[in-house]
Amino acid sequence: MKRTPYYAVIFTSIQKETIEGYLEMSDKMVRLAKQQPGYLGMDSARNEFGITVSYWESLEAIKQWKQHTDHLLAQQKGREMWYRWYNVKICRVEHEYEFK
Amino acid sequence: MKRTPYYAVIFTSIQKETIEGYLEMSDKMVRLAKQQPGYLGMDSARNEFGITVSYWESLEAIKQWKQHTDHLLAQQKGREMWYRWYNVKICRVEHEYEFK
Repeated sequence: MKRTPYYAVIFTSIQKETIEGYLEMSDKMVRLAKQQPGYLGMDSARNEFGITVSYWESLEAIKQWKQHTDHLLAQQKGREMWYRWYNVKICRVEHEYEFK
Repeated sequence: MKRTPYYAVIFTSIQKETIEGYLEMSDKMVRLAKQQPGYLGMDSARNEFGITVSYWESLEAIKQWKQHTDHLLAQQKGREMWYRWYNVKICRVEHEYEFK
């Protein structure tokens, strides 16, 4: 649970059948994201359809991460090699609650 | 792609090991959500961790769905029977883009 408001990037995707090099790049990007200023966390689940939600302190932190050189390269390779389709939604998290 | 701004509910969860009756209830809730006023769509993925994101026209539509009698019963059964943990985030979607 993080203090609202904060920001979320909802990344939904359908991958291609061959995803050579994807797992290594994905691991690298997760490690790199964690080092970014304003990074708050990440949730991820995949079957035939994938959803990754990353959480950030501000829109500026999201913009900086989007424009990070290594991440730009990963995005380009993603479009060329790994993703049939993806969608990105930038959201402001207004309210949060939890059950344990 | 929907016209921004609209709203998203990010539901992340960890299920218990026995989830008897869950699939039937889940199917029923998806059918019911689609009939709600202000419903815009839903994305879902699960491995050991589950993420379901539903999309809505307004906060009022989310509130109505949360308080729907059949949905309240499903939420109660979820807490008692199927979920070890869940988290709900109510978000305003500010911006969206897509790659095909």
